[in-house]
Amino acid sequence: MTEKKKLILVVNDDGYEARGLEAMVEVAKSFGEVVVVTPDRAQSGKAHAVTMNEPLRLNLYKTVDGIPYWRTNGTPTDCMKLGQKVVLKDRPIDLVLSGINHGSNSSVSLIYSGTMAAAVEASFESIPAVGLSLLDYSPNADFTAAVHFGKIIVKQVLEKGLPPYVCLNVNFPKLPIEEIRGIKITRQTKGFWHEELVERTDPYGGKYYWLAGYLENIDDGEDTCEWALQHGYVSVQPVQSDMTAYSAINDIKYLENEFKR
Amino acid sequence: MTEKKKLILVVNDDGYEARGLEAMVEVAKSFGEVVVVTPDRAQSGKAHAVTMNEPLRLNLYKTVDGIPYWRTNGTPTDCMKLGQKVVLKDRPIDLVLSGINHGSNSSVSLIYSGTMAAAVEASFESIPAVGLSLLDYSPNADFTAAVHFGKIIVKQVLEKGLPPYVCLNVNFPKLPIEEIRGIKITRQTKGFWHEELVERTDPYGGKYYWLAGYLENIDDGEDTCEWALQHGYVSVQPVQSDMTAYSAINDIKYLENEFKR
Repeated sequence: MTEKKKLILVVNDDGYEARGLEAMVEVAKSFGEVVVVTPDRAQSGKAHAVTMNEPLRLNLYKTVDGIPYWRTNGTPTDCMKLGQKVVLKDRPIDLVLSGINHGSNSSVSLIYSGTMAAAVEASFESIPAVGLSLLDYSPNADFTAAVHFGKIIVKQVLEKGLPPYVCLNVNFPKLPIEEIRGIKITRQTKGFWHEELVERTDPYGGKYYWLAGYLENIDDGEDTCEWALQHGYVSVQPVQSDMTAYSAINDIKYLENEFKR
Repeated sequence: MTEKKKLILVVNDDGYEARGLEAMVEVAKSFGEVVVVTPDRAQSGKAHAVTMNEPLRLNLYKTVDGIPYWRTNGTPTDCMKLGQKVVLKDRPIDLVLSGINHGSNSSVSLIYSGTMAAAVEASFESIPAVGLSLLDYSPNADFTAAVHFGKIIVKQVLEKGLPPYVCLNVNFPKLPIEEIRGIKITRQTKGFWHEELVERTDPYGGKYYWLAGYLENIDDGEDTCEWALQHGYVSVQPVQSDMTAYSAINDIKYLENEFKR
């Protein structure tokens, strides 16, 4: 039996120049044929945005070691779609890897994350997908441990697959390999961004605001992503796109009686 | 006992000129004090995007019947944050209403929806929030039935509240009041957008792409939003921001054994 080479699409949200992209390619290329499609600039906080009202550009800007690198004016989710439909012309993709993100996508940051959105997008069609993030926002972050553990996780995903319509949200603590205590399967930490809107004044007297803030963790569970990361573990979280609050269905069932023919 | 007047923040994703915004204000103003914060242009498909890398502008552009209308260059989620923090200076909000969207936010469209993202953002802090959408993309859509049923639903939400961290995704079929069969509490329909990337060529020979497609429903359940809407019901769906795929946790638990100290 000859084993077919795996086809891996790499996308990110930090743009084509990010160091984390090179780390992601390093993980991907040990497992098969790699194609890269990324935004042409940083796209942090773009969540699952898609570009509907303006045209999408796409161009091949370099090929390194046989790996084609494409870039687009679109969002991370657009990268996934353009990669699948235009670059790969619907060839079956074995794996989508998104990242490695500069900064955490734990807790509610998952909801704002373009990195994770691209992975979720792939999961809609049950393409195995993993979003990877390192808890270090620095452009010069050290991805050594992330690459090491990324390979361990990706190898298993390629061998064993993922449940249908599920992707993985993987977050790495900012620690060297030898200080990482292990891998934990986690649930999403309850929390929210405690916002501040910092006011400034332009030279013409006009006011403007910068969005800033910090994550408020309101969850003391020991099975959460935040707990795992704070205790030196890699957090691996299964993510789905069904946002139905099933536990609330009965609580609001009475609404059906407010209007009946 | 004197009842305090309710404070209602209205946001949308179709921008300050949308007809659906006027419909939303019509619903809101029958229940209390209303403040409007909307994008300064249409923001369809922006999902939960937030503006981090550029300054946010905010200005009061009109006051009608005592209701202040603010607009910003930000996303729907930014509207919610600016409304809460800057316009209302952290006064306790009783309800966030988002919409009324021109077009459906059923099934997986929920994930791409700026309308629903603003409601989800409010739910992070357990502010009751409802996103409302009409299955009619026309700028001249008739919101009569949506306003009628919107008032029925909002009245109940204000009286009875919502479970913590849960908001509502309300979709109205494109039908006159007398043909609507009732209200159904639903779950999110499994499906995905079947994408096409339509290629065009600019006058200089450069290629570009338009994102287009249609929703593929892969769910034959009779408790879904798509089923309800296709059968003439208003769909009311409880939505949460926890995207953990709990049913998959055991399936991937083996990953914890791949690295142990």
